[in-house]
Amino acid sequence: MKLVGNPVSRGIVIGRVMRYEPFCPQIRESPIPAGDVPKALARYEEARRRAQAELDVLEARLRNTDKDKAKIIAAHRDILLDPAMDQEIRELVSGLKLSPDAAADRVYGAYADILAKSKNELMRERASDLLDVRARLLRCWAGAPERTLSALPGPVIVAADDLYPSDTAALDRTHVQGLITQVGGATSHTAIIARSYGIPAVLGVAGAMEELADGQTVILDAVEGVVVTEPSAEEMAAYRAGAVQSAARLQAEKICLDTEPVTLDGVRLEIRLNVAAATGHELSGAAYADGCGLFRTEFLYLNGDHLPGEKEQFEAYRKVLEAFGTKPVVLRTMDIGGDKQLPALDLPRESNPFLGVRGLRLSLGRMDLFRTQVRAALRASAYGNLKIMMPMVGGLDEVRAARTVFDEEGSALDAAGIPWDHGLALGIMVEVPSIALIADIAVREVDFISVGTNDLTQYLCAADRMNSAVRQYYQEYHPAVFRLLAHLAEVCRRAGKDISVCGELGGDPLAIPALAGMGICRLSMGAASLAGAKRVVRAMRLSEARALAAEVLQLGTHGEIRARLQAFAQEKGII
Amino acid sequence: MKLVGNPVSRGIVIGRVMRYEPFCPQIRESPIPAGDVPKALARYEEARRRAQAELDVLEARLRNTDKDKAKIIAAHRDILLDPAMDQEIRELVSGLKLSPDAAADRVYGAYADILAKSKNELMRERASDLLDVRARLLRCWAGAPERTLSALPGPVIVAADDLYPSDTAALDRTHVQGLITQVGGATSHTAIIARSYGIPAVLGVAGAMEELADGQTVILDAVEGVVVTEPSAEEMAAYRAGAVQSAARLQAEKICLDTEPVTLDGVRLEIRLNVAAATGHELSGAAYADGCGLFRTEFLYLNGDHLPGEKEQFEAYRKVLEAFGTKPVVLRTMDIGGDKQLPALDLPRESNPFLGVRGLRLSLGRMDLFRTQVRAALRASAYGNLKIMMPMVGGLDEVRAARTVFDEEGSALDAAGIPWDHGLALGIMVEVPSIALIADIAVREVDFISVGTNDLTQYLCAADRMNSAVRQYYQEYHPAVFRLLAHLAEVCRRAGKDISVCGELGGDPLAIPALAGMGICRLSMGAASLAGAKRVVRAMRLSEARALAAEVLQLGTHGEIRARLQAFAQEKGII
Repeated sequence: MKLVGNPVSRGIVIGRVMRYEPFCPQIRESPIPAGDVPKALARYEEARRRAQAELDVLEARLRNTDKDKAKIIAAHRDILLDPAMDQEIRELVSGLKLSPDAAADRVYGAYADILAKSKNELMRERASDLLDVRARLLRCWAGAPERTLSALPGPVIVAADDLYPSDTAALDRTHVQGLITQVGGATSHTAIIARSYGIPAVLGVAGAMEELADGQTVILDAVEGVVVTEPSAEEMAAYRAGAVQSAARLQAEKICLDTEPVTLDGVRLEIRLNVAAATGHELSGAAYADGCGLFRTEFLYLNGDHLPGEKEQFEAYRKVLEAFGTKPVVLRTMDIGGDKQLPALDLPRESNPFLGVRGLRLSLGRMDLFRTQVRAALRASAYGNLKIMMPMVGGLDEVRAARTVFDEEGSALDAAGIPWDHGLALGIMVEVPSIALIADIAVREVDFISVGTNDLTQYLCAADRMNSAVRQYYQEYHPAVFRLLAHLAEVCRRAGKDISVCGELGGDPLAIPALAGMGICRLSMGAASLAGAKRVVRAMRLSEARALAAEVLQLGTHGEIRARLQAFAQEKGII
Repeated sequence: MKLVGNPVSRGIVIGRVMRYEPFCPQIRESPIPAGDVPKALARYEEARRRAQAELDVLEARLRNTDKDKAKIIAAHRDILLDPAMDQEIRELVSGLKLSPDAAADRVYGAYADILAKSKNELMRERASDLLDVRARLLRCWAGAPERTLSALPGPVIVAADDLYPSDTAALDRTHVQGLITQVGGATSHTAIIARSYGIPAVLGVAGAMEELADGQTVILDAVEGVVVTEPSAEEMAAYRAGAVQSAARLQAEKICLDTEPVTLDGVRLEIRLNVAAATGHELSGAAYADGCGLFRTEFLYLNGDHLPGEKEQFEAYRKVLEAFGTKPVVLRTMDIGGDKQLPALDLPRESNPFLGVRGLRLSLGRMDLFRTQVRAALRASAYGNLKIMMPMVGGLDEVRAARTVFDEEGSALDAAGIPWDHGLALGIMVEVPSIALIADIAVREVDFISVGTNDLTQYLCAADRMNSAVRQYYQEYHPAVFRLLAHLAEVCRRAGKDISVCGELGGDPLAIPALAGMGICRLSMGAASLAGAKRVVRAMRLSEARALAAEVLQLGTHGEIRARLQAFAQEKGII
């Protein structure tokens, strides 16, 4: 049987499925008969022992690979074994005849509440550890097996309905062979993480959780977007050969990683890196890129339950700037909303979050957050080659409102004698169609534009990029997308302003020749795409790319454009 | 205190608030003590008497104004007084010790289930009557007052969180003075209904249900978008004067209703009617319009719990065609999805329904429904001057897929010897930005285009038109909207294809001069806008409108464009 979905991160792998279904405890609300108390306490003791055993194993495994995580696990064990809480739980069971799960739920919850209100940040952090231990204990009480992505039992292909940022952040990258989800398109958070880590992934696979069993062997073909269940011997052999070939191509690309992106006719393009956090892993591609074309700052807001202060932000920004030395780093102000919700902010639920309070709209509505970020970014500008851009800009009013904030915070820094780069370039993301259609006016008020092709395509096509039911209508090669890109390139050329593409299209080997041909010679992409992009650039002539772009702009459908781009890539030996 | 919101249907009114909160019964699940049975039965009898009294009053009131509705109410009373069901309810109370509300819930539910499965359509319809009576009885049991919009107690301003299509469909138009809702923007279903009936309405009023009490006097200023609670004597006087002025303008417009929409320099524009159902009320404006520019067919699907058959559709379409005689009627194929959900279809919930399976996308995914509608429409084309258009078209693939269906169904009708108009024009709505940007190619494959400015603006601005939190970003006068309209007009002029505007902008007195100036001289609008639109056309010269359009296309923001349009309208005495 073949299940189909979006191949969002290329690669072919054969492996065993591990279903990932977060456990939801069903607390018993009604009291237990008095005669059942000893039995219940024994079962509670057993659940607690099991939880302890899990933590022992986990800690032992992590001790050599990740000391910090191992310490957290040891702390969890201390909480589990805390005699005072244990005593309270037992008293609630014996006295009030609460079921032990209800008793544990209440006792852990009460302590977590107290800690969460503490003025001491370390204490507050312990609240989430308490809740983590409670979840483990309740799961063991229910006899459900451990499901965590942070310590996989061995090499597995993870299958899930959907993965949350906290799931993918904790992902055990040593053991995950591939990802299959029922929800999610080519530009979802999971897809971006998968590509960034080079994990083959097929998302938006309808019915995956119905069809796939734990431990079942499948072929995950994340080139064609197929999951083959119960593969025959022939299929296995064919895919093994394909996997070898795909590995060979990856190898060929890797050779290009440390080369210059120069076309055969001698034109140097700029290939920049998209960076999603100030971690060593994220910054490891810096040496091979012409700067950072998109530094996403959401990680500061999405990890953890507190809002980042100016100092925390400043330090993260400085770290990224220093990693890139004199190369430019384009920081994007917070792009929260849409599919990226922020637990610490408690934003209202929206019927259409992609058409809601996102990006700069949220910043302008929460000036406290925005000003903190602007101050941190301006301060960091003294430590490298910083540029700043705003996401989700729809019109000039927002550009002007944002610029006022930058001016005011800059003056405040001057007054305080804090250094910052007064020549700092301020730009905008072009992803809302309305700003794209008045780009000729907008570029007068900004220093550069960067096209976010994921959202731009989503809005142009009016198709949710996360909704697999409209996958066929989210067309990254829609002629409207290419026409608008060509228009933007022409507007910027005339105005003498910089243009770059930092959406998925910018790292797409099929699209790069056409983009370059239109005059978009500055592309930014995830680390996993760098080598492939350089290989493409080095295999083509810009003169041919220009002819290709002119041809593509005459075509009327997504299918025609894709076919033409594929033919070009094949001709040049790119794919 | 002043509450603010979207003034979606102009007018000023002073009146008393009636809060509309649908009643949710809380059925008592647990049995009652045996000793309470007599008391419970007495209370049940009292609830039943109260329900009967309500129905008596309602029937008496409706007998003179709406005989059909009065008959339905009389049937409800027969159900309530049915001795068999009454007996069963009493037995469940006495025997099983069920609380009477639980007993009534069960007995009515069981009968309704049986009727709902009947093969006889009349019987099936009675099922919903049973549920209606049950709801009334349970509400009386709970002692909650009657809340219905179909028979208001007197002149009131209705305040609600949101209104569903079934609420507005039943709305007592004799007594409703105005509408206030917490949810909803300028182009929501409620807004369209309010404008169509000329009911002053302010939607998207955050906090309305917290602030407004039953019976409270408020000023509803649906010109500025303000609800004044506890108005002072001065405010009352000022608003009374404003209300008189506003009534005078409406009167001046009404005089224009039966005139020709000819500009001062002698150019005849076409003013068409938007029609949302095949009812007398909807069609009453036909005599004053140059045809129907948008015949929405959703009413067939959204009313009731069954899917409309070919015959039912054919008859509705023929009725509309016959009402317009030789004038053109532009039928839009079903535009379900987005904010218009279809109970009978059980569509999957989407995270962003406005970017989901809507309009033609749904039709192409449900060929059974689409083919039925196409057959009905083609058959109806023999009875008038029919044109057909498809909503939510994003690219040529969809146009071609739809055309194939029309061709096939047309051939089938030929084979069956059923007449239809072989010269029937096939067009598309332009509301998805991607199709607008390739309009030059698209017009080669269609006979006409009609611009749906509501959705087009929503997608261009990436702002949900129903979400009051992004109201400032949904900009109907965004320069991108006007530029794209001018581009579409030019494309159609060159290709010799018809263009019209059938979104809200087409009936907007401020926008009409600029649209005409761009060469969009065919506008379609709700009945309530006809007279005002004609008044605008008769007050301007096309030469001036052209100059205005040229000026507007140079402006960079929504605010500048609105100010320029307002200045023009004031100059011409339009507003």
